[in-house]
Amino acid sequence: MNFVRELVKYNSKMNIGIIGLGTVSRGFLEILQEKTNWVSQKFETDIKVVAIKDIMKGNMYNPKGIDINILLQKLDKGENINDDSLKDEHPLSKIEDIDLIIEASYSDYKTGDPAYTFIKDALSNGKHVVTTNKGPVALHYTELNKLAIKNNVSLRYEGTVLSGTPTFSLIEECLAGDDITEIRGILNGTSNYILSKMAGGESFENALGVAQQKGYAEADPTNDVKGYDARGKVAILSHKVFGVDLGLNSISTKGIDAISKKELDAAKKEGKNIRLIGSLKKTGNTIEAKVQPEALGQDDALSNIDGVTNAIEISTVYLGKIMITGPGAGKLETGYSVFSDVLSVIKNF
Amino acid sequence: MNFVRELVKYNSKMNIGIIGLGTVSRGFLEILQEKTNWVSQKFETDIKVVAIKDIMKGNMYNPKGIDINILLQKLDKGENINDDSLKDEHPLSKIEDIDLIIEASYSDYKTGDPAYTFIKDALSNGKHVVTTNKGPVALHYTELNKLAIKNNVSLRYEGTVLSGTPTFSLIEECLAGDDITEIRGILNGTSNYILSKMAGGESFENALGVAQQKGYAEADPTNDVKGYDARGKVAILSHKVFGVDLGLNSISTKGIDAISKKELDAAKKEGKNIRLIGSLKKTGNTIEAKVQPEALGQDDALSNIDGVTNAIEISTVYLGKIMITGPGAGKLETGYSVFSDVLSVIKNF
Repeated sequence: MNFVRELVKYNSKMNIGIIGLGTVSRGFLEILQEKTNWVSQKFETDIKVVAIKDIMKGNMYNPKGIDINILLQKLDKGENINDDSLKDEHPLSKIEDIDLIIEASYSDYKTGDPAYTFIKDALSNGKHVVTTNKGPVALHYTELNKLAIKNNVSLRYEGTVLSGTPTFSLIEECLAGDDITEIRGILNGTSNYILSKMAGGESFENALGVAQQKGYAEADPTNDVKGYDARGKVAILSHKVFGVDLGLNSISTKGIDAISKKELDAAKKEGKNIRLIGSLKKTGNTIEAKVQPEALGQDDALSNIDGVTNAIEISTVYLGKIMITGPGAGKLETGYSVFSDVLSVIKNF
Repeated sequence: MNFVRELVKYNSKMNIGIIGLGTVSRGFLEILQEKTNWVSQKFETDIKVVAIKDIMKGNMYNPKGIDINILLQKLDKGENINDDSLKDEHPLSKIEDIDLIIEASYSDYKTGDPAYTFIKDALSNGKHVVTTNKGPVALHYTELNKLAIKNNVSLRYEGTVLSGTPTFSLIEECLAGDDITEIRGILNGTSNYILSKMAGGESFENALGVAQQKGYAEADPTNDVKGYDARGKVAILSHKVFGVDLGLNSISTKGIDAISKKELDAAKKEGKNIRLIGSLKKTGNTIEAKVQPEALGQDDALSNIDGVTNAIEISTVYLGKIMITGPGAGKLETGYSVFSDVLSVIKNF
């Protein structure tokens, strides 16, 4: 008698937990909904979202995978997602069958919490982490990176700079064989939008008002207009590219709220554009980092970046100057940064 | 009696053969000289150049690895490198201990030879191939790609478009999870340099003369000014990004030699810049591809790309528009494309 045995190939699994159901997670879920089958085929990995926690919208846990379609419909209707499957006091980091946690709650630039604590707990419990929260990465990268290495998991944060526009993946994957000597960037879309409007004759106050109406600027625009958001991103770039923890306070920071009408007029007269530039320059073992408005001539590629667009110019030893330009915010744009990070984890582990 | 056994970790090997010792290979060798130890540590792989063939400069074969330092010194002095270790009639593709062949000879857009034959022989004999020759990739991608898959080796050609500026690695590594709908690019630095000069008032003939003096344009500038070089790159992008073999003849192509003084003046009056744009647009299953001079307003990011700089704007479903800008030629710039491709082969095999 002959037994015919079929060789069945099983995919790997990637069970995801999500902390925070805001715009970013929504964008990620919409992309994942479209791309689940593609990931299964291309990477031989089955992605499932098994748990979600949101302080406002509720909690869910389903080890077989949450139906994203139904979830998105509930969110569209503004419904609470709670189904008593996961208690508030039960942290995602303690759920054994979660492989990766998407941390998309909120944070500040003072302590980085609550995001910082969520990330720390996740890494300590052997979960990969993808985050879009700048605070914890800017403030605690050294500690979190060590924790990730110690637990043999990945900590990724593509969305913290230029949303989904490839920045860290570009540096890691495409520029690995080159040496970066300098980075200059338009890292804050809100302030660039305001500057573009001001160049067209608007006052700072009016331009800010329009930015707030359009949803580019928050009700409290301090982080954007004072340069603190750009500074946080400069700190993250310094960690990642140069391996140096500068500390936020040692990054000299001027915002766009300090620009006078006189400076604007003078720049215009010379055919220049004022841009808020975050920059890092390596000389020997020293990193010079700062954030400030700069009047840039037309021959400076960053001068021509208008509106909410972000851009980073990277100087390297072999390539000279290259520049990547793209969105700095947005639901699908930042959602893609998370999706892209999840793919990187799948590829590398 | 106790025997203490030490666990010795051996690096993998990557033995390289080089066909063609022009500027590109020189650039690669200079980079490799600086980076051999780094590769050994980071990728646990020992790179050696074991064989070289150049129709003018001679042949070399040393299974223990050619001393790059001495080789570069010889080339600097314009000396022939022949040492009777490798006969003219002995092809690199038949040397068993070569893992990867860098094909940097020359080719045209008619047959793609001799580069095409070198690549085909290398792949058929189970060697990975890195090439910077556009002809064979533009004309024979479908066949060469099949051959690579069949022989379980890699065929890489980062340097064929935008030299070492990350293009294919960006698309492969960073945009894998997104879907590209349109590509527009300034793909030919020579014609962009001429256009930049013409916008400043120079005649086409004078601008071309300066480009030739500076070494940007060749003695026979046909491929650059007639748009054929850009067309070849559009064909390569179509193969890679959309998996479609358009055939060079079906890509509508106009060069910059056809631009009239009247068109230039009209563009200037409207505050526009004329740029030679290679473009691909996917609608359903159709790819519309063309090369032509276009008058672009200041709100078009490609309008502001000046001189020999190249740029590609990529439209995707999730990110919208992103753009990468960088060098399109140069010794270290293109040498880096080869180095970067070699690293990709090491990472993936």
